[in-house]
Amino acid sequence: MLSLQSSSSPRWLAQVDQDLELVLIDHAHCEKKAAGTAMNLLFSYVDNEQLARDMTEIVREELEHFNLVLDLLKRRAIKFRKVPPSSYGQRLAALIQKIEPQKAVDRLLVAGLIEARSCERFSLLRDHLPDQELAEFYGSLFESEARHHSTYVRLACHFQPEQQVRSRLAELAAAEAEIIELGDPFARVHS
Amino acid sequence: MLSLQSSSSPRWLAQVDQDLELVLIDHAHCEKKAAGTAMNLLFSYVDNEQLARDMTEIVREELEHFNLVLDLLKRRAIKFRKVPPSSYGQRLAALIQKIEPQKAVDRLLVAGLIEARSCERFSLLRDHLPDQELAEFYGSLFESEARHHSTYVRLACHFQPEQQVRSRLAELAAAEAEIIELGDPFARVHS
Repeated sequence: MLSLQSSSSPRWLAQVDQDLELVLIDHAHCEKKAAGTAMNLLFSYVDNEQLARDMTEIVREELEHFNLVLDLLKRRAIKFRKVPPSSYGQRLAALIQKIEPQKAVDRLLVAGLIEARSCERFSLLRDHLPDQELAEFYGSLFESEARHHSTYVRLACHFQPEQQVRSRLAELAAAEAEIIELGDPFARVHS
Repeated sequence: MLSLQSSSSPRWLAQVDQDLELVLIDHAHCEKKAAGTAMNLLFSYVDNEQLARDMTEIVREELEHFNLVLDLLKRRAIKFRKVPPSSYGQRLAALIQKIEPQKAVDRLLVAGLIEARSCERFSLLRDHLPDQELAEFYGSLFESEARHHSTYVRLACHFQPEQQVRSRLAELAAAEAEIIELGDPFARVHS
């Protein structure tokens, strides 16, 4: 699915069932971080017009989702607060090469893989959660995560030939599959 | 005007006339930086719900303006590129205190003063530029800069009593007036 090389293990849905509230709070932070990542890419590669335009759109959409999750928390009287992130993002960031243009390609592909994994997990939540409002909410986010994945992969091809990008994507996706399998002791979107 | 303690000197409009193209390019970067500043504040104080909501809205509006300036550059066949920023932002940032809650107050007030100065300068451009499209464009941005100024000052009062915030705003505005008067050798929005 969307370049991913694994499906989430059933362990994750068990974690979600145990601490759904924490997953919802972490989800708000994930949307914020996704907006922050797109903003950082905008700052780094602002003279690439297509990238600049696409990043402004992704920032806008992620912050809209952030607000939607805050609304949802409010309706459920769940206090939004800072929570330590899962180790997933940091482990993926460590794979990013330091020299351009590989750095740009890796930053875009890692962002794309996180979107892909979120997409996969949101579809699992849509099918798993007995709570109708939440199931519909996760169903509604599915499409934009998939679209962002494609945007990031397409933009990576501005920095290297498509064949190289595809081969690096496969490498990073293999690493991502190992990282997501490691999990995290606390319930998170990417635990 | 909007807490500012000085009006821009005529020197600045002379610089604009000499290198309007560079001012337009810098303006795109300023909108991007304003979005980045709001995003950074969102990350730092995300558990303040009002701040989080207001910052997402400011990020959205600034990136919309960024896109509008890119459109304008394109219509005029001006190549958008990276340009070194004026020293204005960096000099203002140096005034921000290091300890909370003063740090939060200063970050918000400095952001508010930059909005106020942009507002003042956009109104000068609206009245000065013979180019009708540009004059109207700067007229159209005026209102949102003024609104952002008020948002930042209002939010600063979440971190300290209003009287203290007002007194610090006056101090920072006095420093801002000195900094903007220093100018910059190259034409910029805040030169």
